Parts: sequence; C-alpha cells; structure tokens
Amino acid sequence: MAFQGTSLIGYSNGQASGSSFHGMNPASGAELPELFFTASKDEIDRAARLAEKAFPVYRSISGAKKAEFLRAIAKELEASRELLVARVPLETALPAGRANGELGRTIGQLNMFADLVEKGDWVDARIDTALPDRSPVPKPDIRSMQVPIGPVAVFGASNFPLAFSVAGGDTASALAAGCPVVCIAHYAHPGVSELAGQAILRAAHACGMPEGVFSLLQGTGQEVGTPLVSHPAIKAVGFTGSRFGGLALAKVAAARREPIPVYAEMSSINPIVLLPGALEKSGEALAAGLAGSVSMGVGQFCTNPGLVLLPEGPDADRFMVNFASLMDESKGGTALHSGIAKAYKTSTSEKSKNEAVTTLVGIDASEGASVAPWIFRTTASSLLHDLSLTDEVFGPSTTLATYTSMAELVGLIQSLEGQLTGTIQYDPSELPLNTELLGALQSRVGRLILNGFPTGVEVCHSMVHGGPFPATSDGRSTSVGTGAICRFTRSFCFQDMVAEGLPNELKDGNPLGIARTVNGQLSH
Amino acid sequence: MAFQGTSLIGYSNGQASGSSFHGMNPASGAELPELFFTASKDEIDRAARLAEKAFPVYRSISGAKKAEFLRAIAKELEASRELLVARVPLETALPAGRANGELGRTIGQLNMFADLVEKGDWVDARIDTALPDRSPVPKPDIRSMQVPIGPVAVFGASNFPLAFSVAGGDTASALAAGCPVVCIAHYAHPGVSELAGQAILRAAHACGMPEGVFSLLQGTGQEVGTPLVSHPAIKAVGFTGSRFGGLALAKVAAARREPIPVYAEMSSINPIVLLPGALEKSGEALAAGLAGSVSMGVGQFCTNPGLVLLPEGPDADRFMVNFASLMDESKGGTALHSGIAKAYKTSTSEKSKNEAVTTLVGIDASEGASVAPWIFRTTASSLLHDLSLTDEVFGPSTTLATYTSMAELVGLIQSLEGQLTGTIQYDPSELPLNTELLGALQSRVGRLILNGFPTGVEVCHSMVHGGPFPATSDGRSTSVGTGAICRFTRSFCFQDMVAEGLPNELKDGNPLGIARTVNGQLSH
Repeated sequence: MAFQGTSLIGYSNGQASGSSFHGMNPASGAELPELFFTASKDEIDRAARLAEKAFPVYRSISGAKKAEFLRAIAKELEASRELLVARVPLETALPAGRANGELGRTIGQLNMFADLVEKGDWVDARIDTALPDRSPVPKPDIRSMQVPIGPVAVFGASNFPLAFSVAGGDTASALAAGCPVVCIAHYAHPGVSELAGQAILRAAHACGMPEGVFSLLQGTGQEVGTPLVSHPAIKAVGFTGSRFGGLALAKVAAARREPIPVYAEMSSINPIVLLPGALEKSGEALAAGLAGSVSMGVGQFCTNPGLVLLPEGPDADRFMVNFASLMDESKGGTALHSGIAKAYKTSTSEKSKNEAVTTLVGIDASEGASVAPWIFRTTASSLLHDLSLTDEVFGPSTTLATYTSMAELVGLIQSLEGQLTGTIQYDPSELPLNTELLGALQSRVGRLILNGFPTGVEVCHSMVHGGPFPATSDGRSTSVGTGAICRFTRSFCFQDMVAEGLPNELKDGNPLGIARTVNGQLSH
Repeated sequence: MAFQGTSLIGYSNGQASGSSFHGMNPASGAELPELFFTASKDEIDRAARLAEKAFPVYRSISGAKKAEFLRAIAKELEASRELLVARVPLETALPAGRANGELGRTIGQLNMFADLVEKGDWVDARIDTALPDRSPVPKPDIRSMQVPIGPVAVFGASNFPLAFSVAGGDTASALAAGCPVVCIAHYAHPGVSELAGQAILRAAHACGMPEGVFSLLQGTGQEVGTPLVSHPAIKAVGFTGSRFGGLALAKVAAARREPIPVYAEMSSINPIVLLPGALEKSGEALAAGLAGSVSMGVGQFCTNPGLVLLPEGPDADRFMVNFASLMDESKGGTALHSGIAKAYKTSTSEKSKNEAVTTLVGIDASEGASVAPWIFRTTASSLLHDLSLTDEVFGPSTTLATYTSMAELVGLIQSLEGQLTGTIQYDPSELPLNTELLGALQSRVGRLILNGFPTGVEVCHSMVHGGPFPATSDGRSTSVGTGAICRFTRSFCFQDMVAEGLPNELKDGNPLGIARTVNGQLSH
C-alpha cells in the first residue's frame, strides 16, 4: 500500500519535505521502501494549537457522542486489520498472530472506554445542596466532577505497536476523558502508526469531531516529543518506554512555566517468589511456565519477570537446570528494533562479567537485531550487596537468586525499586502466606499475583498496571483498565451555578441516571 | 501553661538542646517567653523511620478503628480548646473568635474523615471475577482498591494555625487514608503546634495506635522540612504556603532516588468578573461584599480576591470610589508574622511604582507586622501587556482592572496562571452567561463561583480546593473536602488472591457492605 509519509495535523496532511527517515525491517536489517517525514517545529505547534482549539468543543461533547467516536475508531481499525497485520511484522518483527491479537486488544480497549463514558458513572459526580438559612453563614450549593485536563501528548511504544501506540490505551483513555490527543508515532513503526492515525481521523470526520481532536506527528521523541511536551497547549503526557526516555520527558514537563503531569511507564523487573513447597511440588511446571513468560514476545514486555527468588537447596538447583535447558531451547528471536538488541547485548554482557553472577544460559546472538536468552544465577545476599544487579534488562533474560531465609527474602523485596507486579508461587500447604512477605511485596508493586505469571495483563475495571517509581513516574494510577481514564482528568466544582450552566452529570433530576454522591449519600 | 518545647518523636519527646528559637508575638513584636528546639538530623530520621515502621500496622487497621482514632483527636482538640484559643492570638495575631471558629472547622474535618473511612465506600473497590474456562486464556480474578501511599510529610501553614496545620486537613486526610504523618510545625506558631501535636498523640495512645503514626518536628521548612522530604521513608508531601517554598519542596521531591508526589497549595489571585448588569444594579452591595472578602483575615487567605475585572465606564468608576472608601476605612491589621508583612510591603510598594497602575488606596503601615490595604487600578490591556501585575500579593490588597469587551476579558482570563477559584457576578437579566467566558474560567480554576466571593471554603464532599499550577503543584486534586483523601493513596490490585489474604473491602460477600464495582456494575 501507499503511505502518506507525512504527519497528520488535524484534518490536513503535514508537509512531505524536510528531514525524512525510513522504517527498518528488524528481521532483515533492511530499510523499508517508504519514506516518512519528521514533523517540523511549525507542524508541532500547529498540532498543539489545533488540540487547544478543539478542547473547549470536545470536552463539552456528551458521553454518548464520545462513545460513538471511540466505537467508530474501533471499527475503522477493524476495517484496516489486513493492512495493519501485514505491516506490523515488517516494522517490528512481531509475528502476524501477535499483531492480530494485539489489534483485538486495541479494539477491545476502545470499546471498553466507549461503554464507560456512555454509562457516565466514572465522573465521580458529587452534589452538596445549599442551606440558605444556615447560621452563621449560608451553605452554598456545590457540585463537583472529574473534568478533562486538556490536550494530551501520547508517545507510541515500541513494544506494543497497536495496543500502546497511536490508537492504544493512552489515546483511548485520553479521548474518553474528553482530551484531544497529539500522538508522536514511534519512529520504529511509522507505517503502522500512519494506518492507525488515519483510522482515527476517518472516525473523527465521520462523527463530526472538531479538527484537532487528534493529530499524529512523525519523528523521534527527541526531535518531536520534547518540543511537544514543552508546548503550553499540552496539559499531560502518556508514555511507555525506557527509564531514560521517561525521565527526560518528566524533566521537560517539570521545567515548563506550567508543569504538567507525566504518566511514564518505564522500568520493572516483576519479581517472582517461589516458596519452598511450590518449588518442591511443582518445580517442573513452574520452570515451564516461567520459560514461557520470560520468552513471550522475545521478553519485550514491561511485565517480563526479570527476577526469580528461590529458596536455596537442591530443589532450586534442579529447577535452575531444568529452566536453563528450556531457555536454551527457546533460542530467542528478533528484537523490535536494533536499538533494543544493542542495549540488551550490552547489559547482558556486562552482567555476565559481574563476579557475583553465574551465567546459566548465554547465547551470543551477534546478528543484527536478533537476541537470545541470557539467564543468570546469583544470591539474594549478592543482590542486596549490589542493587544494580536488579536493574531492568529489556529482553529474554532473567536472574535466578537464591534466598536463605524469609527475613532475607523480605529484606531484599523491601530494598527493590518500585515494580509493576510482584508474584508469589505457593503450595496450598503453605497457607496462610507470611504476612511480612505479602506486606513487603504490596508496598513495592501495583499488582500482587498469586500462582501466576506477570505477563498477560487483563484489560478490565480492576486492573492496576502501574506501580511505585520507576515502574511508573506516577505510581498512583494505572495505564490499563477503565481506571486509566482518571490520569487525564482533574477535580472541578461549581458553586451556586445556574441550572442551565451545569453539565448534565450535575443537573437536578439526574438526567443521565448516573451514580452520584448527594449530600454524602451514594445514589444511582 | 508550660510547653515541652521539643519535637514529639513517636511517643517520646525529642531533645531539649541544640538550636533553639522563640515564638514571636506579631502584634507587639516581642519574643514569647517559651523556648522551642529545632529537630536535629537524628530526630528527623527517627520520626521518618518510626512512621515507616508504623505503616504496615497502621495501613491494615480497619476503617472503623481509624474513625475512632480521628474522632479521639477531635475530642482531644476540643478538650484543649481553651489553651489553643489563648495561644493562637499570641503567636499569629489572629483574634480569639477566629481561633474558636477555626478550631471548630478543624474538629469538623476530623469527624468528616472519620465518617468517610467508617463508611468505607471511598476506596473505589472493584472486583472482576475469574473465568477459568475462557479461551484462549483463562481470565484471572482481579480485585483493586485505593491503598495508602506511605508516610506523609505535612507542613503546617502560617495562615491556618489549626485547620491547615498540625491537626489540620492534610493530617486528617493522610491519617484517614492509612498513612502515618510526620508534621513540620510552622515556626511562627510552635506553641499552637505543640498543643495540637500532643492532642494527636494522646488520642493515638488511647486508641492503641502504633508508635510513629504521628510525629511533630519543630523548626523551619529549610532546616527540618527539606531533609524530611528527602528521607526515603517519606512517600508524599502536603504543603500550604508560598510559591517559593512549594517549588523548593517540589524540586527536592523530584530529585530523590524515588520521586514522590507533592501537594503544594501555593499562589492564587482568584479573579472576580463583574458583568455590566451586576455592576449597574448591585454595585454598592458588591463593593461592600468585596471589601469584606479582601479584608477578611487581613487578606491572608489563599482564596483572597486579588483581581477584579469590571466593564469600563461610569459604573466602574463609581464602584471604585465606593470600594476604595470602604477599604480605606478597614485599616488592615497585624500580619501573621513579620515575614508576611515585609513581603507585603515590598510587593505593594513595587506595584504602586508601576506606570500602568494607579494606587486608589495605599496606606503606609510602617510599624512591625501591621499591614494596611493597598488597592490598585489598571486595565485588562495593561495586565495582558505585563502579566507580572497578576502575581499574587499576599495580604489585604486587590487590583481592579477594567475591560473593554468580552473578547478582551476572555483573552485575559485565558492568559492567567492557574487559580483556586474564579467568580462571575451577574444580574439575572444577563443569563444565559457567555459560554466562552465560562469555558475560559473553567479551564483556569478548580472552583467556579457565581454571585459569591471566593473566601469561605465549604468543607464538604463536593468541594474542590485546588486548581491548575501554580494554585497547586498538582491540579488534579483537592485539599479540602472528602476528596482530599485520594491525594495520599494509590491504585493497587490483587490477582488470584486467596480469600484470607484479601482485605475486607474486597472479600466475597462484601462484609463491610460498601459500594463496589463488580464486573463493571456498581453495587451497594
């Protein structure tokens, strides 16, 4: 198919001139034929200004109408399935099956947010009615709800070209909240990004959305993302990527005249604790499960288990042999882009040289973007001595560390940085679980998993995909599930507002029939 | 009465040695006799460590038990009413009547949060039940709720020695959320702080709370606050004060190994728009109301109206004469401390020298901490030309600016920094209100008021006392009302948790009878 190659600024195409780049096929190392043009300073400004102009219109659109828009995007993506599924493998080396599945998830997310905003309960509507005769001063009428924060800059993620990129979770939740989106395509999949961006714009057109409700900028985070985040019209940032990139954006956002929130999902090693009973009774199944989890998507998931903690002893030794042989067989694959492969090779090679670490599996995949498993063995005490050994290694690698006591295990967990997830594998005979262990894990993670693996993030109302720094730059929120919408809102109240000036969510008589807290009582 | 003078570290007194200071009576300029000791580095560390140790215990205490604790604090404050009301005027120059009223508000806030956590609905409990037979992968059981973020550093505010200080809104909401509190007493009211701190500790003792659930540090924000905010055990910060102080703390918090959220309420000029009809028909009443609002508490409220926008013309001229004469009569009063008086004199004097500004009232109050009203006149176009004229002046001062058209008015509002409040005074004949004006104000404020004055912040479920930067450093939240609790929580979920490991909020059968979202349906 033919690509435009330009940025998509509101309802116009950007310019097909200036600095340009090609997508790369990570599997072959070859340049893809299509040319893409980096958004110019003017285009970045225009996209942000259009979003600013669209905001007062878009934020006032009803939940039902926003739902229609989100569902229209989902349908347009479905209509582009063939093109998207063909393009994803070329730009990311992810197989077509994965692209198909991820597109399903992307569509599901959009429909989930459509249902949420159509229902409307999410705004946390609160009404305290007036008491004009109260002494010594009358009580005013106060009505509050969550309102959209303003135009949002969304960065496409390398490891989810669909579900966390142009039409992914950040865009879906921001649009659902009532915020226009200016998206920066990930430079490693500009073609997939354009397809998704065009799908959104077709939907926006068809639903009569104001120009600027969505724009897509081509280029890199440094060239395009930094000026966009600095732009006064932008009021929040959604990002999934490296710690380096996330921290750089947070710094830019904090240095603005008006600092803005940055939701950056950055770095997590998702520790898994194997309790002695689980290791003894289910060692083989756990080794197989872990190998699947570490290998999945060539290890390029934010929930990849990068640290496994096992009780020292013969069961641990047996588990390691078993697990190492499975990983040895798994062979690895092609990284999403050569930058990831390069970083992976550097960090695994460095780690293998650390004296406190034994390399159980270490296959040198020297060709281009291909990466192979690296499995390390060490002890909890070595990790406590050198916490840099717990830094994230993005790829099919994990570190197995033995612990000698529950106290040591708890101490290590308390010393870890914040994590998206923490997992305990137990045997039923080990119930009730140690409360110190549960408490220590809970204080370090956003999701606590029992007898499972962290990869596989259910998209639902209860999901929390977030966690203390550096798992995310803002550990209060989630980037998956309906809770993600509240990243892009703020609390706002009216005092003694005239009836016709109130939004439907706050009007007397509850015309939308949503859940509301009236004088402290929840009613719906 | 005799004061301890030391910090209160958990259930022990700090040391009565090292660096020390006296409270000052701002009205007389005289040192108060009691000596207070600045918390040492060791004491700061000990308070933070005790809070860290108390956290796993305190966060697991039931809502009912936390409610008991909060109500016990309220009762202990009531029991100390006489002492507190006697001490407030000595340290702050606020009259006894204000101290009495503010204590009532402080007690009311504690009881409000007690009711909230006893009821328990606030945790936003969500349950998605498992589908073990789902294809291609089983759906796990996911359950989420808001959990406390960890120990919180609370800074006492100079302008609310009770309601926004040691036992004030930040402490009440953090304790309600399940977070231990380490409070830094405001150096200008160390005695009031000690009384409130001792009330909290008596309540903590009586309710069997873990040591470290509360500590009070004496000293200044620079000496004591900065090291406390840097301490790894501290996970969030509550602050009300100057923009300079708030930004300094935000910088310290961002530079930590694990950056933490800072809720700093800093700077707001709370614009009031007078529409032509309101000015014509109610000019006199509005002038009287405005004079009351500007003078209240010697103008030392974060909601003080620092900017009034009037339609150019004879009605505006008449209003100004009228208002100026009322302010002239009001005479001012004594500032909370000499630092505020000094800053007020500097900024009013500078402003009066600006050529774009006419001084309508400017009384030079040269004695010590006394401050007198300064009222300025200018035009919207001058403000647009020099936005530094819209910087907050903390004290009994306001600027009256005339606008020539709705477009100019809207443009000016769009150019303002973020505000806690925005107000429109209209005459019923002017309904419906201009939607551009409403939209512009809404996008710049946390609370939009019609036909009222911003001073007077109702403590209730719907109140939003917050707003875009620099009104607050985190414009998503509120520091007044029940919504304030969510500043000190984060989202957390369990995946496939065993029943006995779940908190009551998330157990099958809903033992607490709270509102929960089960598979997307709100039930209670």
